[in-house]
Amino acid sequence: MLKPLADRIIVQVEETGEQQVGGIVIAQASEQKPVTGKVVAAGPGRVTDAGQTLAMTVKAGDTVLFDKFAGQAIEVDGQDYLALHEKDVIGILD
Amino acid sequence: MLKPLADRIIVQVEETGEQQVGGIVIAQASEQKPVTGKVVAAGPGRVTDAGQTLAMTVKAGDTVLFDKFAGQAIEVDGQDYLALHEKDVIGILD
Amino acid sequence: MLKPLADRIIVQVEETGEQQVGGIVIAQASEQKPVTGKVVAAGPGRVTDAGQTLAMTVKAGDTVLFDKFAGQAIEVDGQDYLALHEKDVIGILD
Amino acid sequence: MLKPLADRIIVQVEETGEQQVGGIVIAQASEQKPVTGKVVAAGPGRVTDAGQTLAMTVKAGDTVLFDKFAGQAIEVDGQDYLALHEKDVIGILD
Amino acid sequence: MLKPLADRIIVQVEETGEQQVGGIVIAQASEQKPVTGKVVAAGPGRVTDAGQTLAMTVKAGDTVLFDKFAGQAIEVDGQDYLALHEKDVIGILD
Amino acid sequence: MLKPLADRIIVQVEETGEQQVGGIVIAQASEQKPVTGKVVAAGPGRVTDAGQTLAMTVKAGDTVLFDKFAGQAIEVDGQDYLALHEKDVIGILD
Amino acid sequence: MLKPLADRIIVQVEETGEQQVGGIVIAQASEQKPVTGKVVAAGPGRVTDAGQTLAMTVKAGDTVLFDKFAGQAIEVDGQDYLALHEKDVIGILD
Repeated sequence: MLKPLADRIIVQVEETGEQQVGGIVIAQASEQKPVTGKVVAAGPGRVTDAGQTLAMTVKAGDTVLFDKFAGQAIEVDGQDYLALHEKDVIGILD
Repeated sequence: MLKPLADRIIVQVEETGEQQVGGIVIAQASEQKPVTGKVVAAGPGRVTDAGQTLAMTVKAGDTVLFDKFAGQAIEVDGQDYLALHEKDVIGILD
Repeated sequence: MLKPLADRIIVQVEETGEQQVGGIVIAQASEQKPVTGKVVAAGPGRVTDAGQTLAMTVKAGDTVLFDKFAGQAIEVDGQDYLALHEKDVIGILD
Repeated sequence: MLKPLADRIIVQVEETGEQQVGGIVIAQASEQKPVTGKVVAAGPGRVTDAGQTLAMTVKAGDTVLFDKFAGQAIEVDGQDYLALHEKDVIGILD
Repeated sequence: MLKPLADRIIVQVEETGEQQVGGIVIAQASEQKPVTGKVVAAGPGRVTDAGQTLAMTVKAGDTVLFDKFAGQAIEVDGQDYLALHEKDVIGILD
Repeated sequence: MLKPLADRIIVQVEETGEQQVGGIVIAQASEQKPVTGKVVAAGPGRVTDAGQTLAMTVKAGDTVLFDKFAGQAIEVDGQDYLALHEKDVIGILD
Repeated sequence: MLKPLADRIIVQVEETGEQQVGGIVIAQASEQKPVTGKVVAAGPGRVTDAGQTLAMTVKAGDTVLFDKFAGQAIEVDGQDYLALHEKDVIGILD
């Protein structure tokens, strides 16, 4: 598995249900909006210039909402994930 | 519900009354101006490099005025909201 | 009324006298210059990373000179105002 | 009169002598260079993030040399001045 | 050998298996994604403005995942490596 | 004379010998390179946010090497000088 | 000789062997890569805002690897050198 550095989190993006009408994929109106995903791994937190590690709010298992243009697509053990910084997370869904 | 991170607030934007004249939507002159909304959730505050959480001024229930080009449109439980940072808020309406 | 956040001030812009010659509006030569206005509300001051609120120099009632391209036009209770940051104010007129 | 904020200074720009040859204004070669002016008012100094006001070196009465592209043209009581930040001043002329 | 300065790491990039179909190289779908490599040398860490050296998380021998557009291609003793800053590393692979 | 502010230095640029071949000025190959000059005045040093003045390394009388694109051309008492910040100086020539 | 300021180093760039084939200079494949050089002089180190001089890692005599697009070409006593900041150095070659 991948151990993210600093304030990075690794997220499994939730499928956005695309509707097919006669075989043609129709993007949902929500596709311009932030998407959600499940956090599979979280780093220890960002280290400040004073050498202090700032604790993470987000932890593995959380479902988070984030900007769909944030992050980098990565592939670990044949699975697709998104690597984000905690600051790209808008909020945690209860 | 969504728990915003850091200094983010989740705002329900107030309807701006568009006038219809014979079915044609006429944008109000005020549409170039900041808009108002009701805060439905507020984060705990931004964490500084010294590890201190700076208390929020804005809290859930406040009606706020903000730049209409700020923030990200989000959708939670089928409702549309705007996610803003507290610094994008111009002021609180009494 | 609107309570501005942080170091924001709400300013009522002074009318710049445009001369009309035969119905044609003639912009004053001074129109390229900063304009003045009356402060109707001032925030408590900017909060530093150390959590300290820096006191404002500008207060409600002051007549201030500011760059005409600074700030955001806002509308409160049907009145037009300008929302500025204190750093956009050049000086206070006695 | 105008009380400048923070590290701003208000400067009365010195006339640069343009030569007229047969009514045609000839810009001096020095027109691409910084110009001089007399400081008519100086702010109390910039306030740091620690809440400390940094004392000004430039004071009212000083003749200063500054980049001619710095500052904002302002008009106070029908007089033209330039509003500068102290960091735009190259030096004080004795 | 090369002793990297500050928070730099020297990485031996892992071969990405390109498939050949009839002699034509076909880029993998994963080629747009971050790549992995083995850390052959790591600097002592970034020195802060307070003169403190911030310890590295990444060390020689680690297999790391990083953005393929980060870093500079270098050549040491006829071998190709990539020089990265630790902040360009997404995570460490176990 | 001119008293430079903060970390500014006033430099008298050394003539770069242009060769004339049949009246045509030929720029030296070195014209793309930094030039040298004699420091005629140096400010007291930059003031930090903590209110501390950082002592200057460069002092009046030094011959310095600097990037020819740095600084502002100024004129004091009919003489041409260059106003630089100490950080634009590459080194001091012994 | 030249005494570099702050964290600057003066480097004598190593000749990159260009091959000549029938009088035509052929750039090496390595020409897009960082180059090496010998440090002939190093400054005392960068002075922080707290007035502290941060010791240099690189010293005169070191052979360093650096990005070929970093630094400024300078000429001292008829010799060509490159002036770099220590942060432009990737590593020290043993």
